[in-house]
Amino acid sequence: MSNHFGDRLFDAVKNKKTPLVVGLDPVYGRLPEAIRNHPRMNDEYDVAAALDAIFEFTTRVLKIVAPMVPAVKINSAYFERYLWDGVETYYNLISEADALDIETIGDVKRGDIGHTAEAYAEGHVKNPELVGLEDFLAPDAITVNGFAGLDGIVPFADVANEQGKGIFVWVRASNPSAGELQDFADADGVKMYEKLAEVVASVANEDKRIGKRGYSNVGMVVGATSPEETSALRTKYPKAWLLIPGYGSQGATAEDCVRFCNSDGAGAIVNASRSIIYAYELDKYKVQFGAENWEKCIEQAVIDAKVELSKAMHQ
Amino acid sequence: MSNHFGDRLFDAVKNKKTPLVVGLDPVYGRLPEAIRNHPRMNDEYDVAAALDAIFEFTTRVLKIVAPMVPAVKINSAYFERYLWDGVETYYNLISEADALDIETIGDVKRGDIGHTAEAYAEGHVKNPELVGLEDFLAPDAITVNGFAGLDGIVPFADVANEQGKGIFVWVRASNPSAGELQDFADADGVKMYEKLAEVVASVANEDKRIGKRGYSNVGMVVGATSPEETSALRTKYPKAWLLIPGYGSQGATAEDCVRFCNSDGAGAIVNASRSIIYAYELDKYKVQFGAENWEKCIEQAVIDAKVELSKAMHQ
Repeated sequence: MSNHFGDRLFDAVKNKKTPLVVGLDPVYGRLPEAIRNHPRMNDEYDVAAALDAIFEFTTRVLKIVAPMVPAVKINSAYFERYLWDGVETYYNLISEADALDIETIGDVKRGDIGHTAEAYAEGHVKNPELVGLEDFLAPDAITVNGFAGLDGIVPFADVANEQGKGIFVWVRASNPSAGELQDFADADGVKMYEKLAEVVASVANEDKRIGKRGYSNVGMVVGATSPEETSALRTKYPKAWLLIPGYGSQGATAEDCVRFCNSDGAGAIVNASRSIIYAYELDKYKVQFGAENWEKCIEQAVIDAKVELSKAMHQ
Repeated sequence: MSNHFGDRLFDAVKNKKTPLVVGLDPVYGRLPEAIRNHPRMNDEYDVAAALDAIFEFTTRVLKIVAPMVPAVKINSAYFERYLWDGVETYYNLISEADALDIETIGDVKRGDIGHTAEAYAEGHVKNPELVGLEDFLAPDAITVNGFAGLDGIVPFADVANEQGKGIFVWVRASNPSAGELQDFADADGVKMYEKLAEVVASVANEDKRIGKRGYSNVGMVVGATSPEETSALRTKYPKAWLLIPGYGSQGATAEDCVRFCNSDGAGAIVNASRSIIYAYELDKYKVQFGAENWEKCIEQAVIDAKVELSKAMHQ
């Protein structure tokens, strides 16, 4: 397997024939009843029981989606909620995903400066070499908050380079208030997120970060909620992988999302979290398969999303 | 003790007669030799040994500084570097600090939107109520990355309110490249960090967040590296606590830092990390006490910093 994240992601997108990435945001109260009612897992206020349930659910989701999508995005917040035990589950899940041969993106949005950024990069990007942790892996890529500018991005990018991994810097969020700061514009109408994209691209476009497929291991997270505008980043920075959140539950359509792909069909991955992993809550799947057949519901939701994205791409 | 973080911090600053906060950024290779050479702790590549050393060091630092300063800032990155075991040590350290009656600020710089921000707030601001974790505490306050605007700030502020805790939103960093984005200015010359400060203040100034001493439980992190300019935030937002990094190792002087205090002598806390906790590396203290008397060196560095800040404040 290639030692360049951009190459691995390219091959995975081509092999799985989809830009779809499944986001794992596990919330105990929304887990399938069969898991929540299991005698060992039926107490959301008991940390061991809750994490057993979350691990059982997420590993089963991984097994369903791994043959179908290039990557999973694991949202660290839902594990950190359970303090260090949750963090251990997060790293266990990364090992499970690795064994299933699917790329893993740790959605951790870490951001700081200098030595502190280096320490975060060691914990979150570098594979542990410490005795007692040496059997664990950090994810293939993480999300980074680039608020501090270059000093907050380069330490992560350099560890990623050295480890054959990648980073996605959060450039434009998909929440309603994101524009407050990110659309803040200078006298020429350049918006803050465009300026940030320029800073990220100055790192992403360095020769040493570009793989054989022409893509960098430094990418951007770009919300698809104003796609007419933000998709200009696609044309401007063709070598950067774009991670597009907001498909499904957050309201962006397949057409909105595929605007971020290059003409080679690669260059963007489209994340759907809740609309996939909680598909068994949706009438559409509940009626067809029954909520108790939650794995079947999830599988079908992945198939449907892939078809929808594929259609949008070939329109 | 007051159930309002702004009040507790005010009283602590008044009681300890200083705005000085000690930052705990423990790096194994810089720990005192006596700790590194201890048979149980002499292997920085063994996670248990390294964390034993870090815990031994930081708890001893806590005992030295707790009677002298209002708060400690614990930098999560240096614990996350050791994955979940490091996170456990971070929470253990918070319990130790609590027993010593000193305010704790978890420097975690978390930032995300909606449900994810809520999950981070649960893990980092809310005291755990989970069986197996119920004896642990989250810190009195954390740092937050406000890149996502209001949606990324309010979930943290609301949990802080409910728990008698606080947040400091990172408004202006102290690193060389911070200005790339944070000084990005609109047509009227308003800079991005000023816009962000306005967003933060719209939360901080809500009645429900203001304590009896007139301060909010929502504050800002403001780098002291261009104090002539950034100290305008002080006058503009008198109710917000400002956390000022960059004193000592990062080059800001005592005069630069005390500009951020209100006329009541409160309103700002000034963080020094490496210049205090590694004081035994400095010739000044090494010659006087010997590097092996590292605790004495740290104690004297705290005294000197307090005197320096006090003089600057009364000039």
